[in-house]
Amino acid sequence: MAATSSNRSIGVGILGGTGYGAGELLRLLTHHPSTHVCCVTSQSSAGKEICGPHPHLSGFYSDLRFTPALEIESLAPFEKRIVFAALPHEASGPLLRDLSPTLKEKGIQVIDLSGAYRLHSTDEHKEFYPEVQRSESLVAQYTYGITECSREQVASAVHISNPGCLATASILGVAPFAKLLKPKFIAFDTKTGSSGSGKELKEATHHPTRHGNVTAYKALQHQHEPEVLQTLHTMGLQKCDTSFIAQSLPIARGIYVTTHIHNETPIALADLQHTLEDFAKSSPFLRVRKNPPHLQGVIGTNFCDIAVAVRGTCIIVMTAIDNLIKGMAGQAIQNMNIMAGLPEETGIYYPGMRPY
Amino acid sequence: MAATSSNRSIGVGILGGTGYGAGELLRLLTHHPSTHVCCVTSQSSAGKEICGPHPHLSGFYSDLRFTPALEIESLAPFEKRIVFAALPHEASGPLLRDLSPTLKEKGIQVIDLSGAYRLHSTDEHKEFYPEVQRSESLVAQYTYGITECSREQVASAVHISNPGCLATASILGVAPFAKLLKPKFIAFDTKTGSSGSGKELKEATHHPTRHGNVTAYKALQHQHEPEVLQTLHTMGLQKCDTSFIAQSLPIARGIYVTTHIHNETPIALADLQHTLEDFAKSSPFLRVRKNPPHLQGVIGTNFCDIAVAVRGTCIIVMTAIDNLIKGMAGQAIQNMNIMAGLPEETGIYYPGMRPY
Amino acid sequence: MAATSSNRSIGVGILGGTGYGAGELLRLLTHHPSTHVCCVTSQSSAGKEICGPHPHLSGFYSDLRFTPALEIESLAPFEKRIVFAALPHEASGPLLRDLSPTLKEKGIQVIDLSGAYRLHSTDEHKEFYPEVQRSESLVAQYTYGITECSREQVASAVHISNPGCLATASILGVAPFAKLLKPKFIAFDTKTGSSGSGKELKEATHHPTRHGNVTAYKALQHQHEPEVLQTLHTMGLQKCDTSFIAQSLPIARGIYVTTHIHNETPIALADLQHTLEDFAKSSPFLRVRKNPPHLQGVIGTNFCDIAVAVRGTCIIVMTAIDNLIKGMAGQAIQNMNIMAGLPEETGIYYPGMRPY
Amino acid sequence: MAATSSNRSIGVGILGGTGYGAGELLRLLTHHPSTHVCCVTSQSSAGKEICGPHPHLSGFYSDLRFTPALEIESLAPFEKRIVFAALPHEASGPLLRDLSPTLKEKGIQVIDLSGAYRLHSTDEHKEFYPEVQRSESLVAQYTYGITECSREQVASAVHISNPGCLATASILGVAPFAKLLKPKFIAFDTKTGSSGSGKELKEATHHPTRHGNVTAYKALQHQHEPEVLQTLHTMGLQKCDTSFIAQSLPIARGIYVTTHIHNETPIALADLQHTLEDFAKSSPFLRVRKNPPHLQGVIGTNFCDIAVAVRGTCIIVMTAIDNLIKGMAGQAIQNMNIMAGLPEETGIYYPGMRPY
Repeated sequence: MAATSSNRSIGVGILGGTGYGAGELLRLLTHHPSTHVCCVTSQSSAGKEICGPHPHLSGFYSDLRFTPALEIESLAPFEKRIVFAALPHEASGPLLRDLSPTLKEKGIQVIDLSGAYRLHSTDEHKEFYPEVQRSESLVAQYTYGITECSREQVASAVHISNPGCLATASILGVAPFAKLLKPKFIAFDTKTGSSGSGKELKEATHHPTRHGNVTAYKALQHQHEPEVLQTLHTMGLQKCDTSFIAQSLPIARGIYVTTHIHNETPIALADLQHTLEDFAKSSPFLRVRKNPPHLQGVIGTNFCDIAVAVRGTCIIVMTAIDNLIKGMAGQAIQNMNIMAGLPEETGIYYPGMRPY
Repeated sequence: MAATSSNRSIGVGILGGTGYGAGELLRLLTHHPSTHVCCVTSQSSAGKEICGPHPHLSGFYSDLRFTPALEIESLAPFEKRIVFAALPHEASGPLLRDLSPTLKEKGIQVIDLSGAYRLHSTDEHKEFYPEVQRSESLVAQYTYGITECSREQVASAVHISNPGCLATASILGVAPFAKLLKPKFIAFDTKTGSSGSGKELKEATHHPTRHGNVTAYKALQHQHEPEVLQTLHTMGLQKCDTSFIAQSLPIARGIYVTTHIHNETPIALADLQHTLEDFAKSSPFLRVRKNPPHLQGVIGTNFCDIAVAVRGTCIIVMTAIDNLIKGMAGQAIQNMNIMAGLPEETGIYYPGMRPY
Repeated sequence: MAATSSNRSIGVGILGGTGYGAGELLRLLTHHPSTHVCCVTSQSSAGKEICGPHPHLSGFYSDLRFTPALEIESLAPFEKRIVFAALPHEASGPLLRDLSPTLKEKGIQVIDLSGAYRLHSTDEHKEFYPEVQRSESLVAQYTYGITECSREQVASAVHISNPGCLATASILGVAPFAKLLKPKFIAFDTKTGSSGSGKELKEATHHPTRHGNVTAYKALQHQHEPEVLQTLHTMGLQKCDTSFIAQSLPIARGIYVTTHIHNETPIALADLQHTLEDFAKSSPFLRVRKNPPHLQGVIGTNFCDIAVAVRGTCIIVMTAIDNLIKGMAGQAIQNMNIMAGLPEETGIYYPGMRPY
Repeated sequence: MAATSSNRSIGVGILGGTGYGAGELLRLLTHHPSTHVCCVTSQSSAGKEICGPHPHLSGFYSDLRFTPALEIESLAPFEKRIVFAALPHEASGPLLRDLSPTLKEKGIQVIDLSGAYRLHSTDEHKEFYPEVQRSESLVAQYTYGITECSREQVASAVHISNPGCLATASILGVAPFAKLLKPKFIAFDTKTGSSGSGKELKEATHHPTRHGNVTAYKALQHQHEPEVLQTLHTMGLQKCDTSFIAQSLPIARGIYVTTHIHNETPIALADLQHTLEDFAKSSPFLRVRKNPPHLQGVIGTNFCDIAVAVRGTCIIVMTAIDNLIKGMAGQAIQNMNIMAGLPEETGIYYPGMRPY
């Protein structure tokens, strides 16, 4: 079924190929009509088959093996060349510091799925990612790629810093209203499945205690809060006090963000909905709902479902995404499509499963 | 193992014996040293064994059968007499309207688990429970029984209106700080398991679609919001704008409430924690946590675990309870204990299971 | 993204369009390069949008509405014409009895997803489907479509009776060894998720009681047992005593079947594996595993993963499928592909999600 | 609420106090009227509070700290003295080898929750527990304590080897019929929740991959198979070929075992049920069900629910238990009760929660 490389114009490399982000990139790219995966790196699995750490890919990518480092020449035959960095923050920061100039020189674009180059402010980066070394001079080359808010910048970007998963769902809930609101206070109440914590074994993702459990973490200290505000302020949102919390749900996939906004003045529901529909009009992955979105409707897809409610000056926006797709690998491919001049939905536009 | 009625001083009747609330009352009362269940009503199951609709109670209550109506005389031999009403709102309202005067006359106290007599304001009742007929003149006799906030009123109450599940966790998160805060805005972000929707088959609790799903409902329209505010204002909380949302989680039990408070002035974490510990000191079921509570730690118990975080004027309080115990049957027994002059933890003080 | 009907040669009708089977057909067909869905029937939802009962299909099939009955003429423009019947057994039996002759006459092939025409024996049908009226004379026209075992019969079939979900996983575990075994006893221990019980609200799929629960049903009385044996005997398996049980798992999707075989003579693991690999060689959806299959690896796919273990005369075969795909809609499309002369994997060959 | 030590006659020590087994012992003993926990050991947590690794026990055992080794003298004041060993197999084997003689001398009885002393045969022990060093001469002192099958031996035992969790549910399904059956083949199909794998972080219990997943392990190689057969043969079951498999379910608690028996001769359902009820008559924790048991009905309890079905010579027995209670800590306390001359249900007889 796999298309041959002859009709595929985008050569793809993946740095850090054994984690969930890479697994999802690889899975999604089996659907993509224009890409060819040339090289997937892993130090721990070098020489091994792709389906070793990704058993669900058994029968796919059977002619590919992990390589210890990026083989740049493998991308050479392709018209467009993209490298996805799917490494942990602390590995991505220094590796891209070293690798980016060479890649830029060779016309290879990077889409970094980590948080290493997301925060524009050096101070904020140091506060929220103290363990992540990066090149401050490269930050400007890494366009923050929240697609629905920055298509033009993505189209002309050198490289992309792909948004965080909780940040994506939080931004997309407020961005449509950025200029309409006069906020006095915004509380982002975010909830996430366990795959967001990655493949590494952790107490927080030990099945016996995660099952049937809910708990909060990083209350008012989450690194996605400045990431969200950085974008929203760029889009014209007035500054105000904010609250942000993450909560662990006993599911593997999905993010549900409920944003409570206290506005200076009342806004009519019709105005909110009109503004929202207007914003979503040109965004194939933003689906406006009359009723609160269901996580089940977006799992396995690149959609962000969104709904809004209001009572006087109190507004609630609800957004639902799949954390590994719209919150990670799917949005990365969406950005890649735009960078490559393709329709942004190429290869990633299909409905979710229900029941799930 | 069952104690004989001779050493038990509290005769118990249950109205509406087949639902989850009644099942949980019956289960918890197997542990209680001072109660004897005399009568459990059910129109649909009259004459049948208790373990029919409650298979987990197989081997317990084997000498009891459902009766079509309350058999008041069965309670007569007991020093104290309590009737728990575990009916749906719309059944409880009119039944208690008719039954309460007789029960009061006979010295039988009612603890109503439904919402029928919770809202003091007739207007609010009509707005949020339009389908529930009740006697307005009885409202004053139904003391709102959020135990930790109203022990003295409970001790001297004629009858009790037992709090709603989401309301319990919401109130207990803010009540400790009611006098300390100068709130500009409070957002109650509440999350609940499926058992809160009861035994009746519903789309929202169909397993294939509830599994792995999250969705919001009753955004800014939930009947527990006025219930929460009614209590908090009584306790001295200043009025302010509020937001309230409920969210369905793919678990069967448990409530997790995250309350975002925007305060006029900054408060130090130490002051918040001191205030909280002070409030909890005399409340055996309120456990103050340094870190965010885990739902798993309270499931199967009457505990409410609570933690607080702050950054300047932004405060987050997190509370976790078991919706059917502290949010329903457990708190009802806690109130019964106080009404009967027993220590409030009698028969309901034991740790939860972990892992769950 | 949808292909236009011009390059699509298969016109598709769906009878009974609101259930999970139809929802999954519709979802999977959004990926298919050669089909055009012309007509979807529903008496209860006639005139309404497809995404009403299938909210995950929001944004897809927006130009289609449910019709009260099959509009045969809508299929006329297409070279090939297929009608999927996704109705409950008791509706499918009489409807196809009445409709099949006309459809056959017009060259329209039916793929019936129900059990109405699965059992060849009239006696067995009456025993296991007493409520299902069917035309006995039509049974011979309904080829039993367990693809991996009957490609040639499917290719030349008038109509197809699509296998049951538990039956599919049970058959595929033993079929490869049908001629190798001399069985004395075979125990099929089958486990299934809740979506297999369908969309209708039922006690067995009420979330509060299904969550965290496991229970068995239809022990030694399941209608899929004769369906399994009918096929395996046709394939050459010797008759022997059998056991069969179904078990409800607290998941929404997936079937895991563990088949314990007591053989007359010992068989070496190498012989079993060789036989299995040989069988799977020409079956793109049968993946032989060295280790026990994981349900997670097949959810969302049309794969059946399979592994075998042995100790002397005791053999265990493990098979895992997605009940709504390989156990229902996916296999139906696989059969449709063969009937239409397409490669059987057309439009349904892609990896599952992991984590899920 | 805690009873003072004055009215408690059993002094309890726990070796290996931080795991799930110890956590469950500690939780269950908060209900027990006759025990006082004197000493809980942990090398890693020595000096720390009990509720550190057991946050659900917050508010309980607050005057106790982990000690690096067993403080034998702490048990001295008590009439009866029991030490529960809740260590991993490989730690328990050598520790009890060294400690048992001293404990025996001092009249302290051991209940070992590990598998170290379960298998009577040295050869089988070496095959299935190659990593576990033990004293072969001590094996005879460790009575295998499957309570329902060996009350008298438990009552007079020096020490107890407490059964494995899957073994408990497997044995209790066949033991009632041990003398009635003439088996040709028995297949034990066992399913378990993740807590059975313990507290240690493992791939198999990583939430993202365990969630929504089912997989088999140790097909025909599980160490509980010889444990089951050793007991059943002692009870009079004829030898026959057997099959045994374990399967991981995406739940935290519970074991469901389905045993398929191929008998030489047909047995009537009435005979099976009569035999079963007869066996269960004197066993307060064995509940005979007419319909297949539900896992939900036994979670959180020491019950084993059991049902049987038959068709000619094919019999299916279904058993359900809580792996950490009847399959571990609960049965250990049940054995302790018998050793101490108490009714076996003391402190552990109460119904489960439903919904769960």
